[in-house]
Amino acid sequence: MPKTTLSITSKNYSSWSLRGWLLTRFSGLEFQENLISPDDPDARAEILLLSSSILVPCLYHGNIVVWDTLAIGEYLHEIRPKAGLLPADRAARAHCRSICGEMHSGFSALRSALPMNIKAHFPDFKVWSRAEADIKRITTIWKQCLATYGGPFLFGERSMADAMYAPVATRFLTYDVKLDSVCSAYCKRIMALPEMQEWIKAAKLEPDDINELDVEF
Amino acid sequence: MPKTTLSITSKNYSSWSLRGWLLTRFSGLEFQENLISPDDPDARAEILLLSSSILVPCLYHGNIVVWDTLAIGEYLHEIRPKAGLLPADRAARAHCRSICGEMHSGFSALRSALPMNIKAHFPDFKVWSRAEADIKRITTIWKQCLATYGGPFLFGERSMADAMYAPVATRFLTYDVKLDSVCSAYCKRIMALPEMQEWIKAAKLEPDDINELDVEF
Repeated sequence: MPKTTLSITSKNYSSWSLRGWLLTRFSGLEFQENLISPDDPDARAEILLLSSSILVPCLYHGNIVVWDTLAIGEYLHEIRPKAGLLPADRAARAHCRSICGEMHSGFSALRSALPMNIKAHFPDFKVWSRAEADIKRITTIWKQCLATYGGPFLFGERSMADAMYAPVATRFLTYDVKLDSVCSAYCKRIMALPEMQEWIKAAKLEPDDINELDVEF
Repeated sequence: MPKTTLSITSKNYSSWSLRGWLLTRFSGLEFQENLISPDDPDARAEILLLSSSILVPCLYHGNIVVWDTLAIGEYLHEIRPKAGLLPADRAARAHCRSICGEMHSGFSALRSALPMNIKAHFPDFKVWSRAEADIKRITTIWKQCLATYGGPFLFGERSMADAMYAPVATRFLTYDVKLDSVCSAYCKRIMALPEMQEWIKAAKLEPDDINELDVEF
């Protein structure tokens, strides 16, 4: 069998790495991690731009290379349809892809003001108004999904959407964002996933070097 | 049959509207346009943020609502598989989704420095360095695809990728971006599509009101 690898970078800081890694774990596909050092100049540039990119996450599966988070999710859904990365119902699937797309291309204020930083905790962090608008939209999405599909995850069973929004759950905890009981419970549910626990444990063991970089947030 | 509509806004300025509209036209699905005025405060905010959004493009098909450009593409591919929005070969499909994902979440410097403005023409426009990097990446993507799949479109036949990159072709012309012969020919091929000709004609008939707004680019 050809070797399957997933390129990722910092587990503490790279939200796109977390999304790609969760999707691959959720799919059940066995893979090896290819850890790209945050000191790698290209990787650094990508982390600092806070954007999706061609370096991470990147899935190598046989002769196939997929380098965008949503493309990885769609690819894994094709080869592991029973993993339930997308809902079985067509309307729910369209809904799921819509909110995954929103996360993929939007929420830039949240991304730049509240970057993922699993190790950190900032009690009473002051969130500026544009990021507040993003938080309001995200919690609206979560509540609509949980009410429509009955939970415990956004589309009932665990799906691509939970992987896409998982880094947001870590940000809400890091930056002490006040949430209602429904959203707070959903965050806890995400953080309690065994895959998340494994990722968080590894993030906490990472050296702190990147903190000393001239990070423009 | 239930009514099918696609919400779009300015044909001159809204690149996301153009992408969603081209995807729907390429799919062969019949639809009515629901034109949201650029003066609508929500629509204005979305155009100014230059981001994908829930307002436009938004496809209503029977009881199904899809509001993200990539989600619309995937949905149309599901219901109109023969339209070829995605390549038939799995590796090519993964490649296609990867570069569509790059366009969807990236190239922010290009988007903000060279916003879509079909009516305008700025000869010898000075492109700043970060946008230059985006242009370099885009032309690399185009050349790799055209060389790998043999053209005339990015994946041979017309696909989702051509719809995603079509607004870039208009920008390259608007801002007089110097291109090599391969990329220049691809731009001309996109502009010559009958769907593009129809869109451009409508864009040129739009009133100029938005030019007078305090647009922050």
